Amino acid sequence: MAQNIKTLLERFARRDRLALARLITLVENRAAQVASVMEEIYAATGRAFIVGVTGAPGAGKSTLVNLLIAKYRAQNKIVAVLAIDPSSPFSGGAVLGDRVRMTDHYRDPGVYIRSLSTRGHHGGLSRAAREIVKLLDAFGHDVIIIETVGVGQTELSVMDLADTTVVVTVPEGGDGVQVMKAGLNEIADLFVVNKADRDGADRIKAELELSVHLRPGDGWRPPVLMTQAANDIGVDALVAAIGRHAEYMRTQRSPARERERRTREFIEVLTSELEERATRALGNGARGAERVLGAVREGSLNPYSAARRVIEDRAALSELIEAGGSEPAGE
Amino acid sequence: MAQNIKTLLERFARRDRLALARLITLVENRAAQVASVMEEIYAATGRAFIVGVTGAPGAGKSTLVNLLIAKYRAQNKIVAVLAIDPSSPFSGGAVLGDRVRMTDHYRDPGVYIRSLSTRGHHGGLSRAAREIVKLLDAFGHDVIIIETVGVGQTELSVMDLADTTVVVTVPEGGDGVQVMKAGLNEIADLFVVNKADRDGADRIKAELELSVHLRPGDGWRPPVLMTQAANDIGVDALVAAIGRHAEYMRTQRSPARERERRTREFIEVLTSELEERATRALGNGARGAERVLGAVREGSLNPYSAARRVIEDRAALSELIEAGGSEPAGE
Repeated sequence: MAQNIKTLLERFARRDRLALARLITLVENRAAQVASVMEEIYAATGRAFIVGVTGAPGAGKSTLVNLLIAKYRAQNKIVAVLAIDPSSPFSGGAVLGDRVRMTDHYRDPGVYIRSLSTRGHHGGLSRAAREIVKLLDAFGHDVIIIETVGVGQTELSVMDLADTTVVVTVPEGGDGVQVMKAGLNEIADLFVVNKADRDGADRIKAELELSVHLRPGDGWRPPVLMTQAANDIGVDALVAAIGRHAEYMRTQRSPARERERRTREFIEVLTSELEERATRALGNGARGAERVLGAVREGSLNPYSAARRVIEDRAALSELIEAGGSEPAGE
Repeated sequence: MAQNIKTLLERFARRDRLALARLITLVENRAAQVASVMEEIYAATGRAFIVGVTGAPGAGKSTLVNLLIAKYRAQNKIVAVLAIDPSSPFSGGAVLGDRVRMTDHYRDPGVYIRSLSTRGHHGGLSRAAREIVKLLDAFGHDVIIIETVGVGQTELSVMDLADTTVVVTVPEGGDGVQVMKAGLNEIADLFVVNKADRDGADRIKAELELSVHLRPGDGWRPPVLMTQAANDIGVDALVAAIGRHAEYMRTQRSPARERERRTREFIEVLTSELEERATRALGNGARGAERVLGAVREGSLNPYSAARRVIEDRAALSELIEAGGSEPAGE
C-alpha cells in the first residue's frame, strides 16, 4: 500500500475529519487504492445505524433531515449525512441551495455532511455510496442519514444501504401516485406526510395506508406519520418510529440473511473491480491486453463474442486484469 | 446452442413477431442464452435510427410518441417503441394507462410496442434495454423510439442508447429547473415545450435556450420546439428537427468514436456476464466455488479481501465462472 494511503488511514483511525474527507474523495474518483482502503477499514464497520430519507423534490426532505440531525445530536449521537445530489452541469455543484439549510450544524464537530453527485458514475453510484457509508461507519458515526433527491432507480438502489427507509410525501396533486409509480412505497419502512397542515394531507395518508394494507406478507407494516418539519411538529414521533423499526429489524436478523447480504456485496465488489480494471486497461492504451481489446476496437470481433472469448480463455482474462491493475498515470 | 433457441432465431430471421417477443422475454428474464443470441444477431444490427423521448411524468410524452409513430408510418417506416416503465408492485403492470393510448397503432403490423419494467433489474436495466434495442434493430425496424417515464439516473443511462434524445417539458412551475436538476439538459439533443398553449411556455423556452447558450463547446445547439401534441401542432417540425440532428450526427461519425463505443460496450457485456455468472453460481448453492464463496458466506473473509483473492488467484476466478455457467434449473 502506498505510504500516503497508509498515513491517511492512520489519521482516519485517530478520527481526523480531513483524512475522512480525503478518503471519501478517493472513493468519488474511483482511485485504484479504494479496494485496499475498504479491506483495511472493513472490520470497523457494522456499528452505525443507517437511515434513508427519500421522496420527490420539494417534499421538504432537507428541512426534515436538518431536524433529525438536531434530535439525534440531542441524544448525544455522532451524526453523518450523505446527500445524493443531482448537480449542475456547469458548476459541478448542487443547482439549488438545499445544502445551505443544513449549515445549522456546520460548526458542530459531531455532525459530518457530505454530498455525492449522481453525475459521471455510470451505474457505479451505488458502489460509491456504499463505500462512503462504510467510511462514515468505520469512522465512528452512530447515525448515518442518506438523503436522495428524486424518485428514480438510483434512489431505489441507494436506499438498499439503509436499515430504515423513510419516504417523504406532501399533500399535493398526485404525490401518492408518484410514489407508487416510482416503486418507493415498496421500499418504505415509514411514510411521512410532510407539510401536513395543507389541504389533502388526510387523503394522501389514506392512500398510503391503503397501499400498506395491500402489501403482501405479514411483516412490518409501515406507519404513516404526519409532520410539519418547518415548525418541528411530529418529528419527535418520527424519531421514535424510526427507533421502533430499528428494534423490529434487530429481531429479524438471521444468519441466513447475513450470509446472503455478504455474498451479494462480494459479487458487487468483484464485478465492479473487474469493470474498473478493464476501463483502466483501455485508459492505458490497452497495453498488455491487445489480443482481445484490439479485435474489439477494430470491430473484427463483436462485443458479445469478445466477452465469451475472454470468459472461455482465462489467459485473455488474465491479460485484461493485469493491464488494468494500475492507474493510467502510474500512480 | 439449444434447439429451441435455434428455432426461435430462424423464425426471428423470417420476421416472425412472436419469435421477437419470445427473445425479448429471454432478455428480460436474463436467461443464460442471451449472450449467444446477441452474438448471433449482432451482424444484423446498426441499421435502425434510435430516438429517445424523456421528461417528467405528465409532460405528454405518450401522446407525443403516439404522433411520432403516425408520422414515421406515413413515411413508410417500420417503427418500434420500447417504453421503460416503472410498474405497480401489485399487478406487475404499469400503474397508469399511458400505454393504452398507443393502441391507435395496435393493429398496424408496421408498429411494434413493448414495455420494459424498471423493476428487479438492480442496475442491469440498461443492459436489458440495450439488448432489446439490438433485437428490435436486427429485426428490421427503421425507427426505434425509447420512451422513459421519470427523471432519474435510469433515464440518463438508457438515453445513452439513443442517436437523438428529445427532452419533453411543460409550462409548469419549476419544470425547467427540474430538467436541469436531473441533468436532462445535458443529454438533450432537442427540447420540446409541450402543451405550449399554456401560460409560461415562453418563459420555460427562454430558460431552456439560456441553458443551451451556456453549454460549453461549439457543437450541436439543441433547438427548443413548441408543440401541442394533443392537437398535432408542431409535431411535423419536431420530426424535421430530429432528421436534422440525425444528419448532423452522420457528419460527426469517426473511426475513433466507433472504437470507443465498441470497447465500452464490450466492457459492459463482459462485466455483466461475470456478474450474472457469479449470481447463478450462488443460485446453484455455490457448488464448485466453495473455496471463495464459502469464506464469504461464513464471514471469515470480508467482501473486498475475497474479491482481491479471486482477482489474484485465477483458479478461484475460474471456479466461479464455471460454477455459474448454467441455469440453476439446469436448463
